[in-house]
Amino acid sequence: MKESRVERVLEALKGMGLRQMLIVDPMAIYYLTGVQVAPFERFYGLYLRADGGHVIFLNRLFHVPEELGIEKVWYSDTDPVMEMVASRMDGEQALGVDKELRAGFLIPLQELKAAKGFVLASSAVDDTRGVKDEEEQEKMRASSHINDLAMAEFKKLIREGITEREAAAKMLKIYQSLGADGFSFEPLVAFGANAADPHHSPDDTAVKLGDCVLFDVGCIKDGYCSDMTRTFYFRKVSGEHRRIYDTVREANEAAIARIAPGVPLCELDRTARDLIGEAGYGPNFTHRLGHFIGLSEHEHGDVSSANTKKAEAGMIFSIEPGIYLTGDTGVRVEDLVLVTENGCEVLNHYPKELEIIGEGGAE
Amino acid sequence: MKESRVERVLEALKGMGLRQMLIVDPMAIYYLTGVQVAPFERFYGLYLRADGGHVIFLNRLFHVPEELGIEKVWYSDTDPVMEMVASRMDGEQALGVDKELRAGFLIPLQELKAAKGFVLASSAVDDTRGVKDEEEQEKMRASSHINDLAMAEFKKLIREGITEREAAAKMLKIYQSLGADGFSFEPLVAFGANAADPHHSPDDTAVKLGDCVLFDVGCIKDGYCSDMTRTFYFRKVSGEHRRIYDTVREANEAAIARIAPGVPLCELDRTARDLIGEAGYGPNFTHRLGHFIGLSEHEHGDVSSANTKKAEAGMIFSIEPGIYLTGDTGVRVEDLVLVTENGCEVLNHYPKELEIIGEGGAE
Repeated sequence: MKESRVERVLEALKGMGLRQMLIVDPMAIYYLTGVQVAPFERFYGLYLRADGGHVIFLNRLFHVPEELGIEKVWYSDTDPVMEMVASRMDGEQALGVDKELRAGFLIPLQELKAAKGFVLASSAVDDTRGVKDEEEQEKMRASSHINDLAMAEFKKLIREGITEREAAAKMLKIYQSLGADGFSFEPLVAFGANAADPHHSPDDTAVKLGDCVLFDVGCIKDGYCSDMTRTFYFRKVSGEHRRIYDTVREANEAAIARIAPGVPLCELDRTARDLIGEAGYGPNFTHRLGHFIGLSEHEHGDVSSANTKKAEAGMIFSIEPGIYLTGDTGVRVEDLVLVTENGCEVLNHYPKELEIIGEGGAE
Repeated sequence: MKESRVERVLEALKGMGLRQMLIVDPMAIYYLTGVQVAPFERFYGLYLRADGGHVIFLNRLFHVPEELGIEKVWYSDTDPVMEMVASRMDGEQALGVDKELRAGFLIPLQELKAAKGFVLASSAVDDTRGVKDEEEQEKMRASSHINDLAMAEFKKLIREGITEREAAAKMLKIYQSLGADGFSFEPLVAFGANAADPHHSPDDTAVKLGDCVLFDVGCIKDGYCSDMTRTFYFRKVSGEHRRIYDTVREANEAAIARIAPGVPLCELDRTARDLIGEAGYGPNFTHRLGHFIGLSEHEHGDVSSANTKKAEAGMIFSIEPGIYLTGDTGVRVEDLVLVTENGCEVLNHYPKELEIIGEGGAE
């Protein structure tokens, strides 16, 4: 058990008027206990109580260390597991539940009247995870440092005739050679018009003269994720594409310049969005400005017009404005940032000036 | 829309007294509509109604074909999506929900009183998916055929000094060279005592003389999954290990020999379990006999002592007995089977006789 993190969660639950919670997100359980299990379709849960009677529910197929500092309840595939879970709960109190708890487990708990009401309480865990402690900050820096080094290698892959899929296929080895444990997500590689889809998967498109070359990539190191996007141009860039690129880069930089404790996250989104809107591309910035990140590539919390929460020292999130023109091009410039006492520390150091790549240089 | 599959689901819902259902499992939506989306944390749902007013809910970031034959409701990240979903539902009727629906979406729907009760209704979709149509059967055969060919290559990887991780790292290319689209799950490679953990992940353990070599592997071809386990021995095998192996193989074969429409799935589990128990290894067979498989590697439905459901022509599931001795060895022999009108068709053809592998042969 990571006692200080559990204490922070219980404190947050108390603020919501809750004295018990069921957590099922394996990453959240790892964060709170150090136990790592991939439960697939089986039930796996950590039950926290204000009075300290915590329990972890484990299938007999899961392997965990002997000493966890918490009571283990083991079940087999043939056991009535939700009845076992319900029997441990305080039926006279409301139960906080994790947003990840699936209906296949939640509805039986409701039918068994395991608690006096079921309340979405993920924020107690998510807000705790959203503010990284020192150890986590150091690991996030190390992961983004590898990502910076990797980006310098990725751009060198882009030579006449290469396809997105071919480039993507070489990335894992590059990350591993730099000390990463793996991808934090499948790399996005998009050339030219493909970049207009922010979620484009690498396909057999070959790079063409004048294409934008977008890499949205990240690795895992010691459990912590990096995530960065850079957009290059293959051998030349048109005037309009340069204007679009510079608009996105400026939006990224303007939002980053606004970051400090107490600034509402929606204001960061607005800063970037206003700048892109003034350049005439408002409708082409189709997603939120950023997302939280840490043990998972997408953690709870985003930097969007809907999030009025204030930045707090220790938070780490992405700043990733983009402009997407269907059938033509797409640009995104993304960094991870750590909110500090006075402003922020940008975790990525790969340059953001427009860069033309490809052997032979510009025409 | 795949009309005949949707009709089968609506028919099953009717049998449960339901006239509306919300489906969120992306694979289930793909099965019913042909639409493939990876929604990550965003809401993605197919709402089916007995009166035919079906709707698919899509985030503006998702890309789907223009023509789906179903009404689309688009939302943005800043929209109150669960209110939009709730407003489409019949609040006077109970709503069937998918077991995969997360509390983060279900609890808001409950709080909005989107329906007159929420009923777990996954079985309507799952049972439909459990019985494969002709097109699916053909694809499952093709995927398992590649898996048979791949197993013959995988065993050749095992030479003096190779580690589990090194062997596993070569598998994707082998699958791709045989025409597969990718893994159906990360391959399990376990040597010697590591095989005693049925979920062991490949690590830096090197193979040793007399080790068992367990491969639990599968690929995807045209969307359909294969899954097979074979256990080999590196250069020699002890008498007790041979006895364990033969017990597992016989349990696999005895269970397969029992398969026919109308036979309860728990009886298949019992057949294998009795045989292993009689050999004195009852406590060492720690999991259910098998699981359903198709578009997903683990589909709803299992072959366990708890499943009294009867086998039906068209069902495809695994038969995978095992014996695990902590600190010593582990054996599993797994095939996929298709229930036919008269018995079953085993989709895997890689031999099951005990096989000694490794250059130089047995000592």
